Amino acid sequence: MDQIEIFCPGSVANISCGFDVLGFCLDPIGDIMRVTKTVTPGITIGTITGQDLPKDPQKNVASVAAIALLNAHPSKYGFRIDIEKKIKPGSGIGSSAASAAGAVFAINELMGRPYSRNELVQFAMAGEALASGAAHADNLAPVLLGGFTLVRSNASLDIIKLPSPPELVATVIHPKIELKTIHSRAILKKTIPLDKAVQQWGNLGAFVSALYTNDYALLSRSLKDKVIEPYRAMLIPKFKEVKAAAIKAGALGSGISGSGPSIYALSRGIKIAEEVGVAMKTQFEELELEYEVHISKINNEGIKILH
Amino acid sequence: MDQIEIFCPGSVANISCGFDVLGFCLDPIGDIMRVTKTVTPGITIGTITGQDLPKDPQKNVASVAAIALLNAHPSKYGFRIDIEKKIKPGSGIGSSAASAAGAVFAINELMGRPYSRNELVQFAMAGEALASGAAHADNLAPVLLGGFTLVRSNASLDIIKLPSPPELVATVIHPKIELKTIHSRAILKKTIPLDKAVQQWGNLGAFVSALYTNDYALLSRSLKDKVIEPYRAMLIPKFKEVKAAAIKAGALGSGISGSGPSIYALSRGIKIAEEVGVAMKTQFEELELEYEVHISKINNEGIKILH
Repeated sequence: MDQIEIFCPGSVANISCGFDVLGFCLDPIGDIMRVTKTVTPGITIGTITGQDLPKDPQKNVASVAAIALLNAHPSKYGFRIDIEKKIKPGSGIGSSAASAAGAVFAINELMGRPYSRNELVQFAMAGEALASGAAHADNLAPVLLGGFTLVRSNASLDIIKLPSPPELVATVIHPKIELKTIHSRAILKKTIPLDKAVQQWGNLGAFVSALYTNDYALLSRSLKDKVIEPYRAMLIPKFKEVKAAAIKAGALGSGISGSGPSIYALSRGIKIAEEVGVAMKTQFEELELEYEVHISKINNEGIKILH
Repeated sequence: MDQIEIFCPGSVANISCGFDVLGFCLDPIGDIMRVTKTVTPGITIGTITGQDLPKDPQKNVASVAAIALLNAHPSKYGFRIDIEKKIKPGSGIGSSAASAAGAVFAINELMGRPYSRNELVQFAMAGEALASGAAHADNLAPVLLGGFTLVRSNASLDIIKLPSPPELVATVIHPKIELKTIHSRAILKKTIPLDKAVQQWGNLGAFVSALYTNDYALLSRSLKDKVIEPYRAMLIPKFKEVKAAAIKAGALGSGISGSGPSIYALSRGIKIAEEVGVAMKTQFEELELEYEVHISKINNEGIKILH
């Protein structure tokens, strides 16, 4: 195999109660990446369409991740990466994770699959570190493994795939402002009140239980965030109103997608998810703020091979 | 039915990664409580053997919990409570929870079971509040529901019963010093570092996942506590050595039981749990400190009716 074309999906990290540990994989929105084996060793970036991103292999998240993989598993061949970048950087749905995970996934396939999807996370982390300053696996894990994932330890990359209740559908609205992860991280406090931390881990434990038992009511009660959301919400226009509109329209829960500015909601069934999308966008229309809305089942597979 | 005799088991709260939210129910150790319907309304304490506890109904956790139940569901009868108190107060294995839960459970049975076991937690909370200053349901929930339990919200008493991996066996060592919950709570910081909180909820989520999947290795990796244990360990003689000995002897994990001074370990199979007990007690013997060791399967039923 000399060439592979893959779909690199977007993802939603944090999911209200799981800051820096939880994430899930989106379905319809994502980049197309084509990776071609070359006789000249090393990584090159070919064409990038859709977004204006660096082509210097040391400055592009896809190539930086790819280089990390090749450092661990050298190849006599090189690899050229072409990207149709559809996920806007700074949108909060894992743009850099899609690129970093996609590059290591594709090259791993072309090398005969020396690593499992779980093992590839470690290399993709190099790309994430370039994009966000501090490398976290909470977007990479769902992109590579699919479904819902939990990063038990970011230091040891102990990653667990969790089950996806079959009727869950995500609505994601992306207001067209850019918010860099590095800035939305800087606004957070270094310490948090113990009582709020206890509420947060009570909710996270309940959320994990709800995924195993398909308990949509419990899932709804556990989608709370008193720790991170109050700070990051200040960076997103009309966050409170959009979230309230989503809940009123029937969403099980709603919150900031990753570090924002996108806002996610989870609903039971596609019909409610679509109504939630309508309710959310009405808020941005009043503000005359441009936006995109995505309705997505949970992508339980993660990255998909197209050709 | 005019009289009921029940077994009120001990319990282990916190379980390292789940401060104030997780707990599990013990099997062989517990109190015997007999409750008798009386023609005179109100709650009285009859005999208490084994421990020196107040008989004033306003000052005994069992009667205070019982009064809370009767305030919500009045009865023309009264109830006399007799207790063989085997769990020492201040031992860290839910002495007050056993009494408070036992009283409301027994009276609920004698009144024809107007409440579910889950609903009884709210009344037992009155007894816990008397004992520890701040009422938490993390011991009451496993005593009433059995098995492993998660308190999603202490404020709304949203309590979830979690599955018990079949091979898990607990070892609990109780050094004979008394540690009041109110004091071991006072030593804690009011705020905690965000990064440590993230590690804690990553571990808690992984622990819940491990209970659903019988993944003993993951369960072992998730039994960590960087938030509470470092402070409370200072109140328990040789805590670090006892914990290290337990792990060395093959325990999946070990930590402080509730607010201490008891130390728990969880092992796979009764043979390892017994070896862990031997290893733990050697540490206290070197110190010439009195102790008790309990080996217990997870009690998946909770309070049991004897007669």
